[in-house]
Amino acid sequence: MKDLQCAWLGEMGPQQGVVLSSRIRLARNLEGYPFPPSCRPGSLADVLTLITDRASQLPDYTVLDMNRVHPVEAHLLVERHLISPAFASSTRPRSLVLSPDSRIALMCNEEDHLRLQCLVPGLQFDQAWKQAAEVEGFLSQTLSFAFDEQFGYLTACPSNAGTGLRASAMLHLPGLAWINALENIFQQVSQLGLTVRGLYGEGTQSAGHLVQVSNQVTLGPSEEEIVAKINAVCEQIIQYECSARRQLISDQRLVVEDRCWRSLAILREARILESNEAMQHLSMLRLGVDLSLIPSIPIALLNEMLVRIRPAGLQMESGHELAPGERDVVRARLIRQMLADAQE
Amino acid sequence: MKDLQCAWLGEMGPQQGVVLSSRIRLARNLEGYPFPPSCRPGSLADVLTLITDRASQLPDYTVLDMNRVHPVEAHLLVERHLISPAFASSTRPRSLVLSPDSRIALMCNEEDHLRLQCLVPGLQFDQAWKQAAEVEGFLSQTLSFAFDEQFGYLTACPSNAGTGLRASAMLHLPGLAWINALENIFQQVSQLGLTVRGLYGEGTQSAGHLVQVSNQVTLGPSEEEIVAKINAVCEQIIQYECSARRQLISDQRLVVEDRCWRSLAILREARILESNEAMQHLSMLRLGVDLSLIPSIPIALLNEMLVRIRPAGLQMESGHELAPGERDVVRARLIRQMLADAQE
Repeated sequence: MKDLQCAWLGEMGPQQGVVLSSRIRLARNLEGYPFPPSCRPGSLADVLTLITDRASQLPDYTVLDMNRVHPVEAHLLVERHLISPAFASSTRPRSLVLSPDSRIALMCNEEDHLRLQCLVPGLQFDQAWKQAAEVEGFLSQTLSFAFDEQFGYLTACPSNAGTGLRASAMLHLPGLAWINALENIFQQVSQLGLTVRGLYGEGTQSAGHLVQVSNQVTLGPSEEEIVAKINAVCEQIIQYECSARRQLISDQRLVVEDRCWRSLAILREARILESNEAMQHLSMLRLGVDLSLIPSIPIALLNEMLVRIRPAGLQMESGHELAPGERDVVRARLIRQMLADAQE
Repeated sequence: MKDLQCAWLGEMGPQQGVVLSSRIRLARNLEGYPFPPSCRPGSLADVLTLITDRASQLPDYTVLDMNRVHPVEAHLLVERHLISPAFASSTRPRSLVLSPDSRIALMCNEEDHLRLQCLVPGLQFDQAWKQAAEVEGFLSQTLSFAFDEQFGYLTACPSNAGTGLRASAMLHLPGLAWINALENIFQQVSQLGLTVRGLYGEGTQSAGHLVQVSNQVTLGPSEEEIVAKINAVCEQIIQYECSARRQLISDQRLVVEDRCWRSLAILREARILESNEAMQHLSMLRLGVDLSLIPSIPIALLNEMLVRIRPAGLQMESGHELAPGERDVVRARLIRQMLADAQE
């Protein structure tokens, strides 16, 4: 589990100075079966078998029986954005089917019978949509998804009905945060029918200047229209962010350098690092690398740190459960090691 | 001037983990001449000649005509604790006579005709008093100092009359500061008739947990009694400080390590450093070195930093006047260089 390949973490993607990842998620349910929240265990097991059997025919995909995955490993999957928190803690019969690079992740018996996600590095919604649609097409050759002429694909929660498509991007916006323009941008984004959230979904804070942008509406526009719209909005945000960074460099280069170097220094030497502080410094590191103000650190390493310093990642690291105070010590040690290794 | 030798900065002394320096200062005035504040320029010039002529017979001593010293250089002498701020900015005819290692510094026409100081590294008041008394003895062979049977040596300000002796130590008390015990110690010290002040005298803050302890009373007790008393009080404070450091190490070693490493990291990499922040980090560095928590850095280097990062030191460094904002940049660069040089 520790060595799980994860495309969005380890590979290069377009616009990755601002966009960490793009994600397409499709919600589907099997015709003739109640949605998971109101489905009897026996029927849920049938659904699981039907979907998993078909999905396991995808070449080199891995099937994980989620009820046999250790809770810490389940949390690790959440931290890598491969499953939802609800899916990790659920007790339904459920499985996760992963492509070799984890670009494609299929959750069986989450809120819907099937949640199909394609998660790619950088800004490439077209690519993600194309891959997700291909896999959905393969599955629908033998599986009948509940579909209504008026409402489109039917889903457990009406907010997903229609296309069942949620497109989201994870953006790093330290420049806009620095010049206090985030609120303004978020308002504009909301007015365009998109939602802005913290890194780990609803209700989470945007630690480290990381935010998720996603479409609100799934019913009405076509899949292609949804994808085109979020893509256009992300490109606009990227422009704003890059312009903010250029402005910072021209107006107060030394102050930005100072902040970036201090963050690198603290990450290299601190013995105790709380999660939020670490995220802030990692944000400055990412900015400093993008602006060539500090020594280059591979973006893959920065992505890896981002997930390995989360609670489950740290517990995998140390091999046992950790109290919050202990995590801060393990987090600091892990970051120190990773940066030292990168320097060699 | 930049390469001025300064014993208290460059040499090792007893108890230097806590005591940066010990100082004995004697105030003397020539019989038959009014004190400088009420003395005509012609008479002041006579006083200057009399004292300087005699002092210049001390072997290898240097005489500086203070009216020909550049104001920045005068400030540098203040920052090295060789002269007082008032002496630096005065326009009286005045001179400074220095021993080769600057242990002995004679200010002619400060508030009194003669202020004789012996400044030594670490806690060694006996040594400082012995040297100061020797030099005073040499001068008094040809100079007649104003002396009254009842009041002892007469001085411009009555608070110096009697022995004319002010003994002071510069102490580094990060342990007591950490456990919030400084106020309590200061109260005890005051009750013993001693005064506690910031690093650069009255009204200055105790930046970097550095404080000056000195005797309040000059009239009544003998020189030996004054010296013995401040020495005993300093030894008591050292015990408290060392006990606080031991307590910190046993109770929260990791937190102390974290603070020390962070300070070292920031001093190594920051691009902008305000004076107070730099002093705080230097304080942690000194603590970390004393407790062997971070790589050893020579105490002389830490002392040198302490004075070279002050405004005049920085202006000498850069060769021209600096606005406060520019100082923060030069300060950060200088510290970075000094630490990098020390690592090589």
